[in-house]
Amino acid sequence: MSQQPSLSERFARGDKGALARVISWAENNDPRFPAFFSQLWSKVGRARRIGVTGPPGAGKSTLVNELARAVRAQSRTVGILAVDPSSPFTGGALLGDRIRMEERTADSGVYIRSMASRKSHGGLSRAAVDACDAMDGFGLDEIVLETVGVGQAEYDVVSAADTVLVVLCPGAGDGIQAMKAGILEVADVLVVNKAELPGADRLIVDLSEAAHIRTAGRGKWTPPVVPASAGRGEGIDEVLAAVAAHRAHLGEAGLAVARREKRVAQVRRVFDERLSELLWERGGWTERARGLLDAGASTYDVVAQLHAGMAAQLAATSPRSTT
Amino acid sequence: MSQQPSLSERFARGDKGALARVISWAENNDPRFPAFFSQLWSKVGRARRIGVTGPPGAGKSTLVNELARAVRAQSRTVGILAVDPSSPFTGGALLGDRIRMEERTADSGVYIRSMASRKSHGGLSRAAVDACDAMDGFGLDEIVLETVGVGQAEYDVVSAADTVLVVLCPGAGDGIQAMKAGILEVADVLVVNKAELPGADRLIVDLSEAAHIRTAGRGKWTPPVVPASAGRGEGIDEVLAAVAAHRAHLGEAGLAVARREKRVAQVRRVFDERLSELLWERGGWTERARGLLDAGASTYDVVAQLHAGMAAQLAATSPRSTT
Repeated sequence: MSQQPSLSERFARGDKGALARVISWAENNDPRFPAFFSQLWSKVGRARRIGVTGPPGAGKSTLVNELARAVRAQSRTVGILAVDPSSPFTGGALLGDRIRMEERTADSGVYIRSMASRKSHGGLSRAAVDACDAMDGFGLDEIVLETVGVGQAEYDVVSAADTVLVVLCPGAGDGIQAMKAGILEVADVLVVNKAELPGADRLIVDLSEAAHIRTAGRGKWTPPVVPASAGRGEGIDEVLAAVAAHRAHLGEAGLAVARREKRVAQVRRVFDERLSELLWERGGWTERARGLLDAGASTYDVVAQLHAGMAAQLAATSPRSTT
Repeated sequence: MSQQPSLSERFARGDKGALARVISWAENNDPRFPAFFSQLWSKVGRARRIGVTGPPGAGKSTLVNELARAVRAQSRTVGILAVDPSSPFTGGALLGDRIRMEERTADSGVYIRSMASRKSHGGLSRAAVDACDAMDGFGLDEIVLETVGVGQAEYDVVSAADTVLVVLCPGAGDGIQAMKAGILEVADVLVVNKAELPGADRLIVDLSEAAHIRTAGRGKWTPPVVPASAGRGEGIDEVLAAVAAHRAHLGEAGLAVARREKRVAQVRRVFDERLSELLWERGGWTERARGLLDAGASTYDVVAQLHAGMAAQLAATSPRSTT
C-alpha cells in the first residue's frame, strides 16, 4: 500500500497545491492555519515583500506582471497576492485579471493568488499577511502584494509589505494635488506609470518637489519618483532598483525593526478578530444584546452591561479554544 | 452674573453648534460622547435614515443636495452626514464638496457634516452611527448618510441606514455587469442617475431584470430601479417615493426588527473598538508582544501567550474605565 504524502511534506517539497490549500485555510479563518503556522514560522522572513497600490486605471496589474517577469529573469521566484477589499461591489474585477494572467503563465517559478472577501477589512488584512507568510515559508523569493484602489482598507493591506509602491499615471487629473499628502505618507516609492503620456513630466516634477519638501532635513527616506511605461516594458528595472535602494536605506537592522512593528500589527489583527468572533459569534452575546435593547437600554448601556460577563467568559477560555 | 447655558441646554433648544460639538466627541472617541448618550437615547429613533452610496462620478452629491431640497420643500428638516473612508488618499474631496454646499445653504433646517478618518474603518462606522444618533436626537426629520466609493468600508457605513440607495449612471461601463451581484445584495433602491445620457435605458432594463430574477418568488423586497437626472432636478420625488415604499414594505414591526439588528451591530462596533483600545493602546500588550516576537515566538504563539493575561486585565476592568 502506498501512503499519500502529508500536506506538510507536499508543502516542504514545493507543491503549489499544498501552498494553495494553506492559503485557503488562512482565507477561511480555518483552525488548521494556526496549527500549520508553527511549522512555517522558522522559514518565514526570507522573502522580500513589495506592496503595490494606486488608483484604478494607473496600470498596477501590468506593472506587477512586468515586475514579476523581471524578477524571474534574475532566476528568482515570485509570488503575487492580489487583494480586493471592495470585491463584493466590483464583482472581483481584479480576480478576473489575475485568472487571465495565471492562464498565461506556465512558469513554475511564479505563484499567483487572488483574495477577496465579504468580511470586514480587518479579517482580510489578517488573511493577506498570513498568505504572504505562507508564500514566504514556501520559499518564494519575492512577494508582491497588490491591491485595487486607494482607500484605507487597501493601504492597511499593502502596509504589511517591506516597501510600498504607489502607482500613479498622468491624466488621473485633479485628484493628484489633493491626494499628495496621503500618498506621500504611505509611499516608499512613487511610480509614474504611462510616462509616455502628456502631463507625465509635470506629475513627476510635482511629486518630486512634494516629496522633498516633506522629508527635507529630517533624515527621512525621500520616496523617489520613478517614471515607467509598464505596457512597453520600460522603467521596470528602475522600479526594482528603487525598491532595492529603499531596502538598503532601511538596512538589516531597520528592516528588522520595521518588520517587528508590522508583525505586532498582525498579532493585534489576529487577536482582535478572534476575540470578536469568540464573544459575538459563539458567546451568545448577540442574543443578550438584543434582549437589553428590547428592554430599552441604549447602545452604550448595553456595552457597559455586557462587559463584566464577557470578561469572565474570556478569562474562562483557554487560548486554544479561541482558535 | 449671567450663567452660560450648558451644552445639554443648547442642544435641547436646537443650537447647531452644540450638535457639532457632540458629533466631534463621537468622531474623536471622546468619553463625553457616551456620557451624553444617555440623555440623547430617549429621543433617538424618530428620524428616517437614508444611506447613499455608489461609484465615483455617479452624481451622489448632486442627488443628495436635491433630496435635501425636496425634503425641505415638505417643511421637514434634514441632516447630511458625508463619510469618506478613503480620505487620507483622496485628500478629502468629499469634504471639499460639502464645505461648498454648506456655504451655499443658509437654511437653518439643514445640517451638514463631513467625517473622514485615518483610523480603521471600524472606528469610522461607529462614529458615523453615533453622529446619526446625535442628529436624530437633535430632532432632524431626515438623515442622509452618504459615502464616496463602493467598497466594503463604505457599505459598512451606509448599512446603518433604514434604506440604502445605490446610485449608478450610464457609461460607468463594463463594471456594472460584474458589480450587479454585489449591488443587488446591498441596495434597497437603485437610482440610475444622469438618465438623459445614452445607455440609461439599457442600464435600467438590465438592473430591473437582475433585481427581479434575484428576488422573484421569495417574498422579498425587489429593489425598484428609479431613473433620475439630479443635475436637472428630475426624478427626485420618485426617489423619495421609492424610499417611502421601501419603508412601507418594512412596516413598523419590520423597521423595528431591522433597526434592532443594526443597533446590535453598533453595540458590537463600540465594544470591539473599546476592547482593542483598552488592551493594545493602554494595556501595555504591544510592548509584551514585541518582547515575545524578539524571543522568536510566531504570530499565533504570541496571540496564545497574551490571551490569559489580557482576559485577567479585562476581568479586572470596570466597564466605566473602558469608556
